[in-house]
Amino acid sequence: MTDCPNVPVATLRVRYSEIDQMGTFYNSRALEWFEVGRTEWLRGTGMAYTDMESRGVMLPLVESHVNYRSRARYDDELAIFVTASMQGRARMEFAVTITQAATGEVVCEGTTVHAIVAPGGKVIRPPAWFLDLVQTGNEQ
Amino acid sequence: MTDCPNVPVATLRVRYSEIDQMGTFYNSRALEWFEVGRTEWLRGTGMAYTDMESRGVMLPLVESHVNYRSRARYDDELAIFVTASMQGRARMEFAVTITQAATGEVVCEGTTVHAIVAPGGKVIRPPAWFLDLVQTGNEQ
Amino acid sequence: MTDCPNVPVATLRVRYSEIDQMGTFYNSRALEWFEVGRTEWLRGTGMAYTDMESRGVMLPLVESHVNYRSRARYDDELAIFVTASMQGRARMEFAVTITQAATGEVVCEGTTVHAIVAPGGKVIRPPAWFLDLVQTGNEQ
Amino acid sequence: MTDCPNVPVATLRVRYSEIDQMGTFYNSRALEWFEVGRTEWLRGTGMAYTDMESRGVMLPLVESHVNYRSRARYDDELAIFVTASMQGRARMEFAVTITQAATGEVVCEGTTVHAIVAPGGKVIRPPAWFLDLVQTGNEQ
Repeated sequence: MTDCPNVPVATLRVRYSEIDQMGTFYNSRALEWFEVGRTEWLRGTGMAYTDMESRGVMLPLVESHVNYRSRARYDDELAIFVTASMQGRARMEFAVTITQAATGEVVCEGTTVHAIVAPGGKVIRPPAWFLDLVQTGNEQ
Repeated sequence: MTDCPNVPVATLRVRYSEIDQMGTFYNSRALEWFEVGRTEWLRGTGMAYTDMESRGVMLPLVESHVNYRSRARYDDELAIFVTASMQGRARMEFAVTITQAATGEVVCEGTTVHAIVAPGGKVIRPPAWFLDLVQTGNEQ
Repeated sequence: MTDCPNVPVATLRVRYSEIDQMGTFYNSRALEWFEVGRTEWLRGTGMAYTDMESRGVMLPLVESHVNYRSRARYDDELAIFVTASMQGRARMEFAVTITQAATGEVVCEGTTVHAIVAPGGKVIRPPAWFLDLVQTGNEQ
Repeated sequence: MTDCPNVPVATLRVRYSEIDQMGTFYNSRALEWFEVGRTEWLRGTGMAYTDMESRGVMLPLVESHVNYRSRARYDDELAIFVTASMQGRARMEFAVTITQAATGEVVCEGTTVHAIVAPGGKVIRPPAWFLDLVQTGNEQ
């Protein structure tokens, strides 16, 4: 069961800079928090994103989808849950859920789809170590 | 035909602050540019968003979807195209396409789905003037 | 000695969204990190900023000064050091230093000056509990 | 008289994403608007920043100073005024004033100080064409 992680990959405090005049986070912030989640999910596999880049694999975004479920206010502590999966042979998807750390209430959730490319931007067939990493990453 | 606007609602220059270390815009910026598009689309109807708020109608985001098509670099001039439609009786959707102003190449495109609420957050049946505005807005 | 704190009020990882095409943090991010520092400094006094607001004291910025000393890359871990002081009777200053957590190298440093105002925006003489808080906050 | 420009280098609309829960722009946004001002000031000299970079001159920030004077709300139209000057032989300063376009009320003002460096980061003595550009730029 990789789709129901019990442990967040990260927690964060909502910054004042992230709140809009309705008193909740501005919508684009969700994508920045998703990125924090991906970074920490990767660190948990033992290969940080910067290590992956130095091995010649980059993961530019090709799609993003976000569902906004409830408000998050300045200084709220949020928990980020991440799972990853391959989408065919040359794409990867991260599914992210962000909750209120104190109550578990879902704040937002969504997915990002990534191409797998070499530093020059050429789409590549992911190497075996990459597929292993996706496989085992969700078991952390 | 409301789904193929020929005239952008706005153009903008990509800011240095919007570019990441891959030399293209950071992914969350697309949602900020979509917001610029909605703002200018509304102004084109004759009712700015602040006017709409003072009439008691607000449009918080409930979903966002973005497809990233090509790069945009610092100082590139982008054109924003917007159409709007009702989704059932209590939701509204904006479809946005952002292109390179010089070439027409699509940079990113997507949709945002909005609830229609009163200032307190209660979902409301949109008033007649609002439905007229959506109807006529795409004809500008 | 309140001006040489030995313990950071917070650490943070540089986000991908915070890096520009020169591969270091975009300059305005320093002010967002300063805000993280102020938030955590206040929490350390036992009165979070939201608590202070609910007691009727707000601290809008009137000046900011930043010196940029060295680069910080994506995923670098940074440490934030903060001291606070009164500037006359109606203003407060936070001095912030941000370093590489691993090496202590200074990334940036600066100050923010804040008015002390009531919720309506009127400048107020700070109450005694506020002055105590500034006094004792640097001893944490 | 180069220090009192009468014509703004740019105007911009305040974005919803730039407003915080106090209903005015978040403080770090001033530095992003200053950058818009520098970009347009340079374009006015006939040499865009990207052209300058391709000639081997870059201008990383070493200091920033901002004074916050009054509020700016969502959708306010702001005007940006810029002057530039050399600071000694190897540094350059931009002075920026941002006003409400409709009334001239000053929203914020400040300076940024920049090193003059080659692409590798080495501080350079600015070439003659650069000094000419600073000289003539304020006359636009």
